[in-house]
Amino acid sequence: MALEEGSRTEQHRQKIWKALDDFRIEIPSWGFANTGTRFGKFSQPAAATSIEEKFADAAQVHALTGVVSNLALHVLWDLPNGTADVPKIQQLEQKTGIRSGSINPNVFQDQEYKFGSICNPSVEIRGKALSHLLASVEIGQALNSRDVSLWISDGSNYPGTQSIRRRIEWMEEVLASTHEALGPDQRMLVEYKPFEPAFYHTDIADWGMALELARRAGPKAKVLVDTGHHLQGTNIEQIVAWLLHLNALGGFHFNDRKYADDDLTIGSIDPYQVFRIFHEILSVRVEDRSAIAFMIDQSHNLKGKVEAMVQTVCTAQELFAKASLVDHEKLAELQDTCRLVEAEECFRDAFWQDVRPIVNEWREARKLPANPLHALAQSGYIERITEERGARNSASISSYA
Amino acid sequence: MALEEGSRTEQHRQKIWKALDDFRIEIPSWGFANTGTRFGKFSQPAAATSIEEKFADAAQVHALTGVVSNLALHVLWDLPNGTADVPKIQQLEQKTGIRSGSINPNVFQDQEYKFGSICNPSVEIRGKALSHLLASVEIGQALNSRDVSLWISDGSNYPGTQSIRRRIEWMEEVLASTHEALGPDQRMLVEYKPFEPAFYHTDIADWGMALELARRAGPKAKVLVDTGHHLQGTNIEQIVAWLLHLNALGGFHFNDRKYADDDLTIGSIDPYQVFRIFHEILSVRVEDRSAIAFMIDQSHNLKGKVEAMVQTVCTAQELFAKASLVDHEKLAELQDTCRLVEAEECFRDAFWQDVRPIVNEWREARKLPANPLHALAQSGYIERITEERGARNSASISSYA
Amino acid sequence: MALEEGSRTEQHRQKIWKALDDFRIEIPSWGFANTGTRFGKFSQPAAATSIEEKFADAAQVHALTGVVSNLALHVLWDLPNGTADVPKIQQLEQKTGIRSGSINPNVFQDQEYKFGSICNPSVEIRGKALSHLLASVEIGQALNSRDVSLWISDGSNYPGTQSIRRRIEWMEEVLASTHEALGPDQRMLVEYKPFEPAFYHTDIADWGMALELARRAGPKAKVLVDTGHHLQGTNIEQIVAWLLHLNALGGFHFNDRKYADDDLTIGSIDPYQVFRIFHEILSVRVEDRSAIAFMIDQSHNLKGKVEAMVQTVCTAQELFAKASLVDHEKLAELQDTCRLVEAEECFRDAFWQDVRPIVNEWREARKLPANPLHALAQSGYIERITEERGARNSASISSYA
Amino acid sequence: MALEEGSRTEQHRQKIWKALDDFRIEIPSWGFANTGTRFGKFSQPAAATSIEEKFADAAQVHALTGVVSNLALHVLWDLPNGTADVPKIQQLEQKTGIRSGSINPNVFQDQEYKFGSICNPSVEIRGKALSHLLASVEIGQALNSRDVSLWISDGSNYPGTQSIRRRIEWMEEVLASTHEALGPDQRMLVEYKPFEPAFYHTDIADWGMALELARRAGPKAKVLVDTGHHLQGTNIEQIVAWLLHLNALGGFHFNDRKYADDDLTIGSIDPYQVFRIFHEILSVRVEDRSAIAFMIDQSHNLKGKVEAMVQTVCTAQELFAKASLVDHEKLAELQDTCRLVEAEECFRDAFWQDVRPIVNEWREARKLPANPLHALAQSGYIERITEERGARNSASISSYA
Repeated sequence: MALEEGSRTEQHRQKIWKALDDFRIEIPSWGFANTGTRFGKFSQPAAATSIEEKFADAAQVHALTGVVSNLALHVLWDLPNGTADVPKIQQLEQKTGIRSGSINPNVFQDQEYKFGSICNPSVEIRGKALSHLLASVEIGQALNSRDVSLWISDGSNYPGTQSIRRRIEWMEEVLASTHEALGPDQRMLVEYKPFEPAFYHTDIADWGMALELARRAGPKAKVLVDTGHHLQGTNIEQIVAWLLHLNALGGFHFNDRKYADDDLTIGSIDPYQVFRIFHEILSVRVEDRSAIAFMIDQSHNLKGKVEAMVQTVCTAQELFAKASLVDHEKLAELQDTCRLVEAEECFRDAFWQDVRPIVNEWREARKLPANPLHALAQSGYIERITEERGARNSASISSYA
Repeated sequence: MALEEGSRTEQHRQKIWKALDDFRIEIPSWGFANTGTRFGKFSQPAAATSIEEKFADAAQVHALTGVVSNLALHVLWDLPNGTADVPKIQQLEQKTGIRSGSINPNVFQDQEYKFGSICNPSVEIRGKALSHLLASVEIGQALNSRDVSLWISDGSNYPGTQSIRRRIEWMEEVLASTHEALGPDQRMLVEYKPFEPAFYHTDIADWGMALELARRAGPKAKVLVDTGHHLQGTNIEQIVAWLLHLNALGGFHFNDRKYADDDLTIGSIDPYQVFRIFHEILSVRVEDRSAIAFMIDQSHNLKGKVEAMVQTVCTAQELFAKASLVDHEKLAELQDTCRLVEAEECFRDAFWQDVRPIVNEWREARKLPANPLHALAQSGYIERITEERGARNSASISSYA
Repeated sequence: MALEEGSRTEQHRQKIWKALDDFRIEIPSWGFANTGTRFGKFSQPAAATSIEEKFADAAQVHALTGVVSNLALHVLWDLPNGTADVPKIQQLEQKTGIRSGSINPNVFQDQEYKFGSICNPSVEIRGKALSHLLASVEIGQALNSRDVSLWISDGSNYPGTQSIRRRIEWMEEVLASTHEALGPDQRMLVEYKPFEPAFYHTDIADWGMALELARRAGPKAKVLVDTGHHLQGTNIEQIVAWLLHLNALGGFHFNDRKYADDDLTIGSIDPYQVFRIFHEILSVRVEDRSAIAFMIDQSHNLKGKVEAMVQTVCTAQELFAKASLVDHEKLAELQDTCRLVEAEECFRDAFWQDVRPIVNEWREARKLPANPLHALAQSGYIERITEERGARNSASISSYA
Repeated sequence: MALEEGSRTEQHRQKIWKALDDFRIEIPSWGFANTGTRFGKFSQPAAATSIEEKFADAAQVHALTGVVSNLALHVLWDLPNGTADVPKIQQLEQKTGIRSGSINPNVFQDQEYKFGSICNPSVEIRGKALSHLLASVEIGQALNSRDVSLWISDGSNYPGTQSIRRRIEWMEEVLASTHEALGPDQRMLVEYKPFEPAFYHTDIADWGMALELARRAGPKAKVLVDTGHHLQGTNIEQIVAWLLHLNALGGFHFNDRKYADDDLTIGSIDPYQVFRIFHEILSVRVEDRSAIAFMIDQSHNLKGKVEAMVQTVCTAQELFAKASLVDHEKLAELQDTCRLVEAEECFRDAFWQDVRPIVNEWREARKLPANPLHALAQSGYIERITEERGARNSASISSYA
């Protein structure tokens, strides 16, 4: 019995270590910045405001967890002058060991985009939006970054105020032109979202629309799944399974939600769902999942920014480790014979495992702290950046009224 | 002023009459039969139980409204012996002037389909399901009916109990084989539904999946939109706009809902939504909407069956008439210049019109009763069928326990 | 027939005129100010920024529609120095003929309220919040305003991070103390909201919680229903019926929504729902509905502010006029005999009436423009305030990053 | 380190054993019977059809898990002749060691209840419903059962067809009369549900309505929370916290759901939510939770009935064991100081523990099989009842058409 138990643990260890060695997460620069809701922002003294601070924070998260591959960059917020900043970014990459991740254009914030960007009835404004997308593609090339990540927030707030139909055509045009500009190793990821900031119709509202647009744009266009961008009840792992089946899954924006696009920490509301998504990914051949970008997109309104990010990547690792324990062969047999209860128990036996001891062992074997959150607290990093950045961040900021 | 008003009314009359002359609705045979919820059925003495009674009820609805083109048939309930019934049906068509509408296979009710039909892990059961689909295609051919309407209820109730991924492949195979059997004038319509009767994953859960499956099956496969088959908040008119854009809209199952797939009377909960869907349809060229099947799929649990159906088609006509009043040219101009409030008011000016007087005029001009519900009450039809069918229907029926 | 029709129209006229004469709406000062989403604000040159401008805009809306009773005031945004501004406000009231409406404390925006206001674990912060509420009560007394309107946004974002249970007790204490301070003619309205800005639990999440808190606070506390503050599918008119039954309905914040708390124009998404809410109100005795405050709470992010407000109050009037046409006696009889289709048709016959001609007549009889939106466009008001306020408002504002 | 680990495990063992010793679950007789959806029933040969078989199945579940206290009885399905069956039931109690649990009246199935039972406009039908409720109270007295569990499915399907307002009064009357009949040790539990089988309004739609009705009925009336009876997004643990705060929580109907009232196995979709509900219960004093009835209400459409029930109670035990591990003292301190990430990690550390080894130890110490599902499979029980009951159950049953 003890022996059996021991050999089972050894099997688990092998599966988990392998899974963790292969698992890389991209974190977003804006995860370290002050954010809020439309009712106001709670300013944090340790929040990052410059690109240097964001790279530094990312490096700190990586030092504690070993899982951070890249830092996603936001064009308007991080690269306001476009290509001019490339040398600086490259220097930061070298200094911190963190590479530039996906390039995120911003066509939702400028006053011109009040009625849409790439779907705006004005050909001038669509042109402006396209220029910004092309500039983003160039930045990506310059930084050797693979993915240009398109979140198009276009839509309308009231029935009848815009033509849903004609906007599809305008959008197709701009996306095709953007695709044409991609370099040989670049991809464009098309994100979808059912609502917010648009409250009646959002031009790219679901995975079906994103997929159509990606296909019409060209072969380097893939779909990006933000886990918070679904209506209540959506079976996200099924969409993931379909996109994998269609070879159209570009990557994820991970976060969790209870209501709308709440941008909470991954697995904080429904950890079993994350497990199921990871299971779908781990169910396909290694080569079919190698190009999936695992990105985080969260809004740490109340939690400490760096602390929340460390918690995030640790949670992702632990849930990925759990998913790696599923016995695919046994599960397939139980599924094929429709032994429902047994299949379910086989499946969630992996979820119920407390993988933390093995994950901690892996961390130590990789020269990482066994408890990254604890190590962060001990490191004095938060205190240091609080002091350095605090004065500048002290002003109370509000977005409302 | 009076003159202007008069010329506006004349314009409205022309638009509405034209719209109504072109508008045909298919009603379902099961709309006249006893139905219920899982908690029980409330049996109605006037409910139809035979195919003869269903044709008779449909003819009665048509006599009062002039809008019923076809009667949708359900293979298991209406045609239990397959092709053998064709001559009888043809006789009924001739007698009632009602044509056979879409053929609806049933692969959800037999005990074999407990774990799925065309997605069942068992190759035998998938084969059985395919046979039934092929028999339905044959029936369609024999009856000269254009559409085979596929509602596949397959899915699973618990995470891990079935392989979402592998079931996609099985489904693709069966649908391709079904498509192959279609005659030159036949189509297959692929319906989607997010849940119920499956409560964790439904194999064809949304329009994106239905579209993929239709495309892979072949050019005669189109998507069927049941208005009640969407998650809360879904913008259905946007999906309609996309399907029209992609030339992939086969038709509708109209009904209304407040919560889930409640199968209520069209427009009874959110009439403005029906208006918006009709507006999308009326926004494309006539030739691009000519092949759309307008079908009803409702469950008249509490309302009198024939009464509910007359109410249904009248409501559909009135909402269609309203939608026909939208001034497309003016609306496009206001949309293009982003004059939101004016565009919205232009749009819903059509909705706010009380079109009933003009619709009644049209009815009278077409030798139909001005008030079909009133005419039904006066006709004595309900009393007659209540007496004829009552004894047989008197038994209390319950589906639970 | 023509005679009958004429007498019916006359009956409608009498009902509608009476309804409109009794119908008063309170509009919010913040409806004229720049607002946005967390992704950014689209600044409008004509937006109001001072209390003077807000009173002026309200007066303009009233001049065009005759329906505006009061202007709701927001303590932090409109009355930053508390009682000191009272004389100024009184002057504005006199000048514009618009009275101060409900007083809206703000305990969600200050940095101290990051983890809650009246539910904050810190007794000091709860004390600070109470002080603000008491100051709001005093302002209300000074301005002779009846209602202090409490929207408490407190909550938490993650399971386990706060004690739901203990926060109930803290809240009860503060609300009881606030109630004690109310003058003899004052009321406090307790608003509820399921989520946003809190994303896991909101301390006052539904009408049941608001009702409990109101009762425990005391007899002058009533519940405030914001139509946008419900989960998808909630039957709002039923909650209204219950609150009327319990004599606990203080008033409304009207707006519309398709997804979350979208703060769209009333009736823009689901006008039939507004009609049903009005019907519940008109179903009780006049004296039982006399104390209901009809307030608007919308966020005009894209529409012109004054234009949107005129559209809003006109829509409210028209839907109220429709609801006034319901034949209560006939409806009750059909309901009691469970003649469903007839009852439904009787009910929505009122909704389908095009009441606009009669409403326009009423407007003219009351020396108001027949078409308020048209009159606004003709008035030159928007151009004037755009010029006056434009320079100051020209800066691009963004809440994100 | 090993020592520390050991002492932590010992602490866990003590907490879990204590929790499990105190935890009793009531299971429903209808959980062993054939059920389905409105689209059909998949008949199981081993399903129970008689009261004897249901007691036998319950006893089997108890023999394997030691957690089953009572068997909930359904008046119409289990006790069709009312009190006449009491001696037989008492015999079964004695024979099986399983006591009669809550008595569940059925006022939803008879044809008379088509338009409602205790809310029906007909005074006769309300009288009939009251008689049934009073008979249920008598049965409860005769069987020494504490709780009469009222699920009132009354409602309406279409706006305008019933008076929401007047139905409240009718309902209050009947419930008050039912309360009067309760014996000194009896309680009545008022259940709520947002929709199904009614699709527009359900007379007792949420916990606020149930609470009002319970209070007006009298002090022995409490609220019953069915976890599947909430709109998407509802924070159920918060409702539980409120009901505990108000001393109004009578008990639970546990099950899980992804979409509507799916009646799936507890914890099968969102196990973290069950953990959070248990945490709220374990957060109040022992005496404040002693009267809470933990009942199961699930519909095992596809899973084997007995197998599903064993899985259910094991899952409940394991999630209850997890919840018992929360360190309340430490958590309160972290909550009070708003150390969010630490509080969250403290909270879910309990959830992440793999409690199964300790639960298994407890089972063995209580002379129960360590793995109840495995033991069930080995026992031959399913084979035995399949053979005994199979012939009778073989007929294919369908509820549709």
